[in-house]
Amino acid sequence: MSQEAPFRFELQAHSGAARAGLLSTPRGPVPTPCFMPVGTRGSVKGISPRELREVGSRLVLANTYHLMLRPGEQLVAEHGGLPGFTGYPGPFLTDSGGFQVLSLGALRRIEERGVFFRSHLDGQPVLLTPERSVQVQQALGADLIMAFDECPPYPAEASYLRPSLERTLRWLERCLQVPPKPDQALFGIVQGGTDLELREVSLRETVAMGLAGYAIGGLAVGESKEEMYRTLAWTAPRLPGDRPRYLMGVGHPEDLVAASALGIDLFDCVYPTRTGRFGYALTDAGRLNLRSSACRSQLGPVDPSCDCETCRSFSRAYLAHLIHAGELLAPRAISLHNLRYLHRLMERVRSAIAQGALRAWAESWGEAYFGAAPPTWFCAAVRAA
Amino acid sequence: MSQEAPFRFELQAHSGAARAGLLSTPRGPVPTPCFMPVGTRGSVKGISPRELREVGSRLVLANTYHLMLRPGEQLVAEHGGLPGFTGYPGPFLTDSGGFQVLSLGALRRIEERGVFFRSHLDGQPVLLTPERSVQVQQALGADLIMAFDECPPYPAEASYLRPSLERTLRWLERCLQVPPKPDQALFGIVQGGTDLELREVSLRETVAMGLAGYAIGGLAVGESKEEMYRTLAWTAPRLPGDRPRYLMGVGHPEDLVAASALGIDLFDCVYPTRTGRFGYALTDAGRLNLRSSACRSQLGPVDPSCDCETCRSFSRAYLAHLIHAGELLAPRAISLHNLRYLHRLMERVRSAIAQGALRAWAESWGEAYFGAAPPTWFCAAVRAA
Repeated sequence: MSQEAPFRFELQAHSGAARAGLLSTPRGPVPTPCFMPVGTRGSVKGISPRELREVGSRLVLANTYHLMLRPGEQLVAEHGGLPGFTGYPGPFLTDSGGFQVLSLGALRRIEERGVFFRSHLDGQPVLLTPERSVQVQQALGADLIMAFDECPPYPAEASYLRPSLERTLRWLERCLQVPPKPDQALFGIVQGGTDLELREVSLRETVAMGLAGYAIGGLAVGESKEEMYRTLAWTAPRLPGDRPRYLMGVGHPEDLVAASALGIDLFDCVYPTRTGRFGYALTDAGRLNLRSSACRSQLGPVDPSCDCETCRSFSRAYLAHLIHAGELLAPRAISLHNLRYLHRLMERVRSAIAQGALRAWAESWGEAYFGAAPPTWFCAAVRAA
Repeated sequence: MSQEAPFRFELQAHSGAARAGLLSTPRGPVPTPCFMPVGTRGSVKGISPRELREVGSRLVLANTYHLMLRPGEQLVAEHGGLPGFTGYPGPFLTDSGGFQVLSLGALRRIEERGVFFRSHLDGQPVLLTPERSVQVQQALGADLIMAFDECPPYPAEASYLRPSLERTLRWLERCLQVPPKPDQALFGIVQGGTDLELREVSLRETVAMGLAGYAIGGLAVGESKEEMYRTLAWTAPRLPGDRPRYLMGVGHPEDLVAASALGIDLFDCVYPTRTGRFGYALTDAGRLNLRSSACRSQLGPVDPSCDCETCRSFSRAYLAHLIHAGELLAPRAISLHNLRYLHRLMERVRSAIAQGALRAWAESWGEAYFGAAPPTWFCAAVRAA
């Protein structure tokens, strides 16, 4: 991909390794660093398209594996793609399905050709290949699409990781053979586990193919935070500076701050909606358990400084009541707040980068968030900013 | 209650027995006929306060029994009442708890003093009396509150119904002994099952107490539509013409049209949200089953003529997909449409009454809705308009 319209990534400010940028897509600009809410099955759980816009979502992730199996990519294409299907008119990114095939598909078998698996819905046998993944993503019509890769399990030996990432590189070449659509950009994915030699091979070969953006896969899959951040700190600065860098499947508040400091531009995670459904609200003082007995009598909002509809409308006591009563409004209202919290967090990170002062901001944020000295991995990461 | 501010009921138009009116309350005017969504536990299931306003809700029902047991009326009072607790700033009506005590309370025992029961939540013994019901409703802070009554089971003999309704009349006198709040109006409830002689006794004695409004209870509890409408057609016109008439627990579309024709002004029912959670959408052509295989490929909205957010954003196929995928957005989106459908239906009924032409409108609506000749009870009811 060239850096021509409709895809352009413009760096606007730096704070050490951290970057603030603007990623142009056919369906609108995406200020970075950016957190993407996850609409696995074409819906961010409990949240309407209008609310996504209102909480500040700028790029939404949808899942190739799930949508291919149900309702089928053809139905989505008949709606004109994901925006027409879901009612959310902004930019989308689709993952390639590789991760889900391997984590959800039963009786899966990885071969050079692709992955054979049985659908988790009805047991039907399916073959997902690099070519088919790209074709499905073309039918789904996202703005940004991902190469079909293998995300290896953790822990894995180099003897597993090396052939896996070499196959992933061959799969990437095959993805690039599929005639592209002009309104879609393909991202490659760097693998290699926590083995820096293998990361180097994967990164060098992936970058050599000259893609519109690069993702770091295979992290946050079970390794320690120290291992994850050691790998990230090595990998992120070696990716091309003029292309967006996407850290896949990561999105706890502390990770958004720490990985932004290391130069990551895009994030996705089910965390804000999943933890919201469990009754946890994200705040600068850490995660608030709305099921706790203390909350049942608190008349103030989750976060007095938050501008979301939940904080403007509801007390903690009311949210606690909704949870205990099993009301549908509870997961929805808490998820809405959590999405707003993460989007505001990204806005604050962007603003600190624009001032060239992310490190000081992140250290101060970390002290309040962890309620004590932040962990070593966090401190080390933010020193890059 | 006098007809003075803040409670005033102004009749604006008639079409035969049907009336269009405006009920003034301290928290705003309520155009009638009006359908009230039900927020049993202080939340209309899945719907936010903002959405309630947007779909056209003007008066919301909340449940004394449920809120008294959890979270307790005191917590609601600490929020300044139901508007502060729920985030919905408009008028509320609370039921008295009589119906739920008898249908949900375990090991209940009806005595002259009140009803002893065990909480369905924790088995704790509770005594609900007329005085306590009014006091709880004062703490909840609704604009309109209901007398504590017994809603007898169906079928019941006159030998059960008569002492029951006589006790309900004595309970009403006791409700009236509780010092009222100036910003709350008390409605009485006419009982008597489908026995018109007993209805006459209950109606005469209840009306003699000179209340702000009158409800018809004990219908839609298992009797046939013919029996229900025979009782309603007898009772409704005998209630004072200058006070609002509330048909409790009724709210299917065909009932809103038929009972409006008989002169009913207020309705409540869990139907739009409950049937929405089951995947059914209300339309002029009847109830649409979004789980049906036909809907899975339909690219159009539930109802092209509907102005709700669901119909403006989502296809039938997308809603069907959300249902099949078990997504939280499905019950929410369909409930939202159903509420909007019922509120629009009431607006259309009001408009037809204003033109003195409800009967013709209702006959035409009924033909489309029933998809055949409407049932006899419907035809008989709309002839009153």
